[in-house]
Formats: sequence, C-alpha cells, structure tokens
Amino acid sequence: MERITADLDEFRKTHALDTVIVIHLTSAEPACVPPREFHYLESFLALLEADRRDLFPASVLYALAAIESGCPYVNFTTCLGSAFPAMDELARKKGVPHMGRDGKTGETLMKTTLAPMFVARNLKVLSWEGYNMLGNRDGQVLDQPDANRAKTQDKDHCLREILQDDAAHSRVRIDYVPSLGDWKTAWDFIHFQGFLGTRMSLQFTWQGCDSALASPLVLDLIRFAEFAHRSNESGVMTHLGCFFKAPFMVPEHGFFRQNEVLLAYAAAHRKAGVGVRA
Amino acid sequence: MERITADLDEFRKTHALDTVIVIHLTSAEPACVPPREFHYLESFLALLEADRRDLFPASVLYALAAIESGCPYVNFTTCLGSAFPAMDELARKKGVPHMGRDGKTGETLMKTTLAPMFVARNLKVLSWEGYNMLGNRDGQVLDQPDANRAKTQDKDHCLREILQDDAAHSRVRIDYVPSLGDWKTAWDFIHFQGFLGTRMSLQFTWQGCDSALASPLVLDLIRFAEFAHRSNESGVMTHLGCFFKAPFMVPEHGFFRQNEVLLAYAAAHRKAGVGVRA
Amino acid sequence: MERITADLDEFRKTHALDTVIVIHLTSAEPACVPPREFHYLESFLALLEADRRDLFPASVLYALAAIESGCPYVNFTTCLGSAFPAMDELARKKGVPHMGRDGKTGETLMKTTLAPMFVARNLKVLSWEGYNMLGNRDGQVLDQPDANRAKTQDKDHCLREILQDDAAHSRVRIDYVPSLGDWKTAWDFIHFQGFLGTRMSLQFTWQGCDSALASPLVLDLIRFAEFAHRSNESGVMTHLGCFFKAPFMVPEHGFFRQNEVLLAYAAAHRKAGVGVRA
Amino acid sequence: MERITADLDEFRKTHALDTVIVIHLTSAEPACVPPREFHYLESFLALLEADRRDLFPASVLYALAAIESGCPYVNFTTCLGSAFPAMDELARKKGVPHMGRDGKTGETLMKTTLAPMFVARNLKVLSWEGYNMLGNRDGQVLDQPDANRAKTQDKDHCLREILQDDAAHSRVRIDYVPSLGDWKTAWDFIHFQGFLGTRMSLQFTWQGCDSALASPLVLDLIRFAEFAHRSNESGVMTHLGCFFKAPFMVPEHGFFRQNEVLLAYAAAHRKAGVGVRA
Repeated sequence: MERITADLDEFRKTHALDTVIVIHLTSAEPACVPPREFHYLESFLALLEADRRDLFPASVLYALAAIESGCPYVNFTTCLGSAFPAMDELARKKGVPHMGRDGKTGETLMKTTLAPMFVARNLKVLSWEGYNMLGNRDGQVLDQPDANRAKTQDKDHCLREILQDDAAHSRVRIDYVPSLGDWKTAWDFIHFQGFLGTRMSLQFTWQGCDSALASPLVLDLIRFAEFAHRSNESGVMTHLGCFFKAPFMVPEHGFFRQNEVLLAYAAAHRKAGVGVRA
Repeated sequence: MERITADLDEFRKTHALDTVIVIHLTSAEPACVPPREFHYLESFLALLEADRRDLFPASVLYALAAIESGCPYVNFTTCLGSAFPAMDELARKKGVPHMGRDGKTGETLMKTTLAPMFVARNLKVLSWEGYNMLGNRDGQVLDQPDANRAKTQDKDHCLREILQDDAAHSRVRIDYVPSLGDWKTAWDFIHFQGFLGTRMSLQFTWQGCDSALASPLVLDLIRFAEFAHRSNESGVMTHLGCFFKAPFMVPEHGFFRQNEVLLAYAAAHRKAGVGVRA
Repeated sequence: MERITADLDEFRKTHALDTVIVIHLTSAEPACVPPREFHYLESFLALLEADRRDLFPASVLYALAAIESGCPYVNFTTCLGSAFPAMDELARKKGVPHMGRDGKTGETLMKTTLAPMFVARNLKVLSWEGYNMLGNRDGQVLDQPDANRAKTQDKDHCLREILQDDAAHSRVRIDYVPSLGDWKTAWDFIHFQGFLGTRMSLQFTWQGCDSALASPLVLDLIRFAEFAHRSNESGVMTHLGCFFKAPFMVPEHGFFRQNEVLLAYAAAHRKAGVGVRA
Repeated sequence: MERITADLDEFRKTHALDTVIVIHLTSAEPACVPPREFHYLESFLALLEADRRDLFPASVLYALAAIESGCPYVNFTTCLGSAFPAMDELARKKGVPHMGRDGKTGETLMKTTLAPMFVARNLKVLSWEGYNMLGNRDGQVLDQPDANRAKTQDKDHCLREILQDDAAHSRVRIDYVPSLGDWKTAWDFIHFQGFLGTRMSLQFTWQGCDSALASPLVLDLIRFAEFAHRSNESGVMTHLGCFFKAPFMVPEHGFFRQNEVLLAYAAAHRKAGVGVRA
C-alpha cells in the first residue's frame, strides 16, 4: 500500500501534475466474492489493519491507494478494484469519483446491443452461445480456469440480466489461439423462438483488434474522470455504465439505455456551460 | 375506387363490425416518386377527378378507399400507400389514424439495431454489404428489377440516415432462392475502422421465417390502430416508427430510439387509464 | 457375453435370417486405451477368462459376441468396439468382416475434405478451432468430460494426421445446447498463412440433422458388410475408411483419397461380375 | 502483333534469356464466344490475314505472339487467350506448351473442393449462392457488367459440371467494395437435402488476400511451363488443370482429382529422372 501510494506521489511530482487519474489495466484476476466486511468502510479498514492479505486482491490495494491519494480511479478489467460499497463510501468521503468494471469492447458490446432487440420484439431467446478466441497476453492469462471463470461470468451476467429468462441457455467460452495475436474473433450463435413457436437463428462473427477497441474507451474514461473530478463529483460515475461489462451500481445492462444516460449527463453539463476537455 | 369501397362496406356488414382496419400486405410495387400534386389534398383530388390512372399505384387507391371509408389504415409493404402529405391531410380531416411503410422484420431490424452502436462508439463504417435470399412469392416478385429497386432503397435508406456518412459504401441485394421457401437468410458484412485507422469487421447471418416474423407485428399494428382510433387520434401514428423500414414522418431510424417512443406512448396512455386491447 | 450371444441367436431365428449384421450405435463411452493384452488374441482371451470386467468396455463385449457368432460387425460410435489387433485376429479366424470406428457425418467430414486442400496448396494452417453444438441424447452424454474427451480426440486426430504439422494449433469443443434437438451446428475457424507470411482465414457453419446424416451411412455400411461377407472377405474392411472418423488400420484420413479407395473396390467387384445389393 | 513480338524479342535479348515464358495477368475481358473460324488453324489465320480486328480480343493477340515466338504461354485470367483449338494446333506445330484459363485461387477453389464431397455423399445440392466482394483494380473492372458476366460464368460453370444436376440453383455475384483493397471476402451459402428430404445448410466465409493467393500459383506455373518446354512437351498442359477455374481441355473440375493428375505427372517425371527446377 505504502509503495503504491509513494509511486503515485512520485509520478505526480515528476510530471508536475495537478491530477493523476488511475486506470486499472492488468490482466484478469481470479473471480472473487468480496467478504461481508467489504460492505462497510469501518469493517473493511479493520480487515486491512489486521493485515488479512489473503482477503485483498492486488486490484483492491491499487484502488485503495488511488482513492486514499485523492486520485480518480477507473477499473477497466475483470478484477474487483473499487466495486464494493466500502470503497465507494471512502471515495465519497475523499471526494473522489470512481468507476468500473471490465471494459465493454467487443462481444459483450454486441450482446448488450442485440439482446434488448430480442426482448423488445418478444423473440424468446432459447440459447445464446458465445465463443471467443484471442491470442494476446490477455488470452494467455484467460487460459487459466480461474481467471477464465471470472471473465465469462461478467460476459454472461449482463446477457442474463437483459433477457430476464431463467430458461434461456447461455454459455461463454474464451479460448487462447496464439496465432491470432491481438485480434479477437468471437462467434455467437443465438437460437430464438418467434410466433407459433417457430425456431430461428442469428449468428455473428466479430473480428476486432483488442487494443484498437480498448484504447479510445480508456482515453474517454480518463477525460470523463478528470471532468467529474473538476466538477466536484464524487463516488460512482454511474453515467459511464455503457463503457463496462459489469458497471458498478448500474442495474441497466442494455447498451442503448446506458448510452442515453451518458448523453443526458453530457447535455445537462453542456447546458450548465461546462464541457469535457477534448 | 368504388369497388374497393363497396368491398370494405360489405365486409363490415357481413361480419357486423364497428371498425374495419385495413392492413396493406401485397407484394412490392415498383418504386414510385409521388408527383408534386400529391403534396396537397386539393391537387391530389383534382388528379383523381381527371382520372389520371397512370399516376395512381394500386396501393394509393386502396389507402384512399380505406381512409375515405373511415377505416384506420396501415401499410406493411414497400408500396406507396398513404405515405404522402395529401393523404395525411385527408386522414386528419376524416379523423382516421394511418401509418406505413414496409414492415421491419429481419435484416433491416438488425441494421437499425447495430448501426447506432457503431455511431455511438465512433467506429466508422467503411462498407456495409447486405445480401438477402428468400424463396417465397415475395422473393419471386423481387426478382423483377423494378420491385427489387424499391425494396433495396427502403433497406438502404435507413442505414444511410443513421450513419450520416456519405463516404460509407453500402449495398443491398435481394435474391430469389426457391429452395428456401418462406425462410429468409441474410448475410451482412460490415467493414469498419477504429482507433488509429485499424480496420475490423463484423458479419452476421440471420435465418428467419418471413411469415413468423411478420405476423405478430401485423397483429400488434391492428391493435395499435384500433386503439388510436378509439382514442380519437388521427393522422400519422408516428409512435409506431419501430415497426417500419421507412416510417412516414419519423426522422429517427435507430430501432431503440423508435422503441422508446412507443414505450413512452404506452406509458402516457396507461397513466391516462386506457389500454391497448389484448 | 452369453446373454448378448443368445439375443443375437434369437433375433436370427425370430426373423428367419441367413445373416445378422451388427451395427454398434450407442452413445460415446469414455476414451479407453486398450491394455497391452488386447494385442494378441491369446492374451486377450486369457483376460476374458480371468473375468477382468474392469478392462472390457461394453462395446468390446458386443463386438466379441457378434464376431464369435459369425456376424459381420460395424462400429459407428466413438467406443472401442473391434478396433484392436486381437479382435481382428479373431474376425479373420472366424471369417467375419468388421470395421469401425466413429461415423464421419458432419464437421469431421468437412475437416477431412478441406484440410488436404490446404496441404495441396501449401497454405500453412496456423490454427483450426472447431466448435460443435448439439442438443440430442448424444449431446447430453458428451456433456460428461470423459465421453467428450474420447469424441474430441477422434475429431482432432484425423486433422493432425492430414496436416502433419506439430506447430498447428487445433481444438475441438462439443457443447450440449438442448434447444437444438437433433440439429448439430458446427462453426470452424481456420487461420492460415500463405505467400510471404500473409495470414488469411476461412470459417464455416455447418447446420445438419444428426440422424438424417447418419442413417444413410448406416444403411450403406450394412449393405457393404453383407456384401463383403457374401464375398467371403474377412477381417478389417479398409475400403470403408471414408465412413469413419478413426478408420481402423487405414492410415489415410483425407476424405477424397478414402473415397477413391471405395470406388476402386466397387469397380474391381463390378468387373468381377458381382454387385452390392440395393 | 508485330509490336508484341518485338517486345518479347527485346525482353529476351535485354535479359540474355534462353526461354521467355509468357503469363497473361490482365484484368477480365468481356466474355467472348470464339467464332467458328477459331476452330481450325487455317480459318483462324485467314481471319487474321483479313484483319478482322473486331474478332480478336487483345488476349488472343498476346497468346498468338507468344506462341509464334516459341514462348510457353499461360493464361491466368478470364480472358480467352489460347483456349481454342486453332491456337492449340499452332502451339503443337511450334512445339510450345500452353495452358489456361483463369487462376483458381479462392472461392472457386473452395467450390471445387466441397462440391465433390456433396456428390460423394449423395447430398443433393438445392442451391449454391456465392457472394464475392473485393476492392482492388480487378474488383473495379468487374464492376462492368460484361467483364462480370465472363468471370461469374467461369466460377459457376465448374460447379455445375461437378454437380451434374440441372435442377440445382446456383448464383455467383462479384461486387466491388473499395475499402477491402486487395482482400477478397467470399460468402457462400449451400442449401442441401439429405435422407428423407431433410434440408440442411453449409455456409462459409473466405477472407483471402488476392495477390498472396495468386502469386505462388503464378510462380509454380512458370516453373511447370519451363519444365514442360525443356521436356519437349507441347500443346495443352492438361496436368495443370488444378490451377484453373476453366482448364482448357480438362473435363474434370473436382480439385482433388485434378491434383492427383498433377501428382501422377510429377511422379512419372521423377521416375524418369528429371525434375522441376526449384
């Protein structure tokens, strides 16, 4: 903790910065259910005091260091980061905006765009099978069953939230295919039922470059975090839900509704005469 | 005209109905640019009086007969129907709600769902190529170049409206493949450009049953038209934009925004204590 | 063993048949490496004598009963059946033709058709990822990791034999998707490298009905087995390699070369004046 | 004619070459049915004498110049080139090997690999729809209806020859999609019927780089032409059928059988102690 805080301080001084914005961009940690003590700031800090290293994933320590140092924090990965109530309590106390988690760049962007259409048209999804292949370091890490489970849970959860149908079958697989390098190829097969039980299907292949899809989102998140900080907003930036697979404290998972929230936020601020810096 | 009006009257009497709702469901007519006289009711009626049969596609006569007879009218096809100002003027005068045109059941539903996502994420569409195959009577009619042109224009127009980018290349083909029968298979290829000019692609295959997709929309449109009539609404039912490829007097082509308008309409009426009959 | 033999006898008598042909058509057994004793008939029979039930999968007992009873035997499943030297020795001794294993009906048929083309054109396969989904009882059984491993090994092995390239990455997944019923959907992604290292790709989606693909092959195998028996041929029917994912004692896995062998067999017999009964 | 012959001579002299091999690599010419006089060398030369420029596509003049100059000639394009009896008669007279036409690099390679599998398995092809998109100069030229027709005829013809089924529906489209540049993307949809009339489908997407696919074939053709010349072979090199969409005087269109012919040719020459120069 001290080391991370010192690093942040040094970075700020070296580059003579007013604000440092921390973006978490590591590979996936194994899935982790935060212990009950992570619910309130007091019990959370008590655990920290007791040095219960087994309960603190690295991402939580980084988030803590950032927020303690007054740095806006955004978690672009599957890791836990700041996505639990105690950390949010701390962020609000410190006047720091934060948000996460897990950038929505490709297959999940497609899923949360298409699934609401099936719901709106009353086309019952029977099965939604998603196969992802990628060849970069992220793919290599996701070859570990634990990390893989964490990631596929995020990808699957938002689909199930939108469909609201326990009977629908869904599966997400992420496979490491070295020759693809930074190119992520996803094939999704959607089996659905319409009028008089007629069974139909949709399939899509998404071929995207992981970094080229993630980078502009990261840049926008930095701008939005900086803007929120400058506007004295603190706590969860729920208006940024459309950027994430598992947006903290945002119940809506459909991409368009999330995006409308962002547009409304921008419109409100534009009206108030302030703007996000280009 | 007289014959159609008589048919409508007889149908109403035979079945002892209060309201007859007319849904236009023929195959595609050749594309037609309405003459200047179709802009005002007066000049439109003058043309009719002058018996200028060459200027009146069958679908316009059917729409006219319906609206003159006080029947709510919905045009589910590519044909012109009631989609010009003079007819709307007449409908408002007669207190009749109407809407059209061209049901949005498959590939275009996908297009108007996905295209706004590319815009929202600032992913520049370079090319959007859509290939449609179908084997039913509609497919056979669309084997005629004129009808084909009318249909592909509707399908392409909404995409261009959403993308708002003259440089984007787009093409729609509809081919008659007899063995597919009532099953419509569409393959779309979308070539797009992201961060630092990186070129990526999305492709999808939609395999749907034409009738099973269209029927529930037609049933809903009948209910909505009946409800609007009962609520003393007249003129264009712009809240039904999400049902159509070329919704008359609805500038928005994105499916979700169109759908939100429908939901808002339903919510407003629910609040007012009235409901659409199941 | 006695029970199976008795069943075969009874079947023959009840239906007053000259020849009974046994086709193995159960779901997949867990993968099994035959013990060393299965190499020679003598040691194999000694194990049987010793009642080592743990070493005899059900499929081996059925094959044994069939061959002991003089019935031509064909194994259309992933199970071991008659595919080891001791059983072949017995078959030749008894004058019984036999063959297996694992019917080549869909994705593997595609693989063994396409892979030789990549080899012939010197297009280096970097990765070949195959995703299979099916919803029938076979799919349900393959949800068991052991049975799944047996099946994917057969599907992957023939690809690797054709490509003869240890560096190529390949993967086969088989997932149970209940809503698909008897319809098998496979998506394969092939990443390959051509001139000057240019990386290209092929992907295919195969949508087939499992039973409709398997049934005619089973009927043809019955005819071929009956014909071989009538022609006094015994031992492995290597000319039937094109019907199987893992054809016993057939080193060639390319579909076309296997098929040419079958055509040559048919031509030779036709010349000799005999024919397969329709 | 004189100018082309002079160019060839000069090229030979400038580079001090023993043999010059001419490979035709222009864009597609409009489809052309050779006039009856192209059947015999005598009547062909009479037409030339009569200066009937309207009957001689440029590609025929180039082929003539090459063969008259004793240069082995290969036509890698859709153009007519040397693919008619009179030119073959001349080539044999001059002791020159020649071959064409239309390199088989991508979608047609796939077609002639897959179609024989459907035939071998008695799966009746109902429809085979092929959509090709490319963005290079070839694509631009193929935007001309005449050139397009020539190309799609070659692509469709070999399929129909393999299927031998007049009832099968097939279509080939080639569309110019500028953003794709040298990358050719083809989507084929194959609708087929199996046991008890069950209808199934296969679809594939081929994403290849046109030049990277064509170049190694062109290099191999140069080597084979040089080898044939050195071996005193003249006339049509029918053993090179597997390289072409419309191989002159080769009735077999299935890729594997064509490839076996090439392998047999190589084996026969290897046995005779000669080899193709690397």
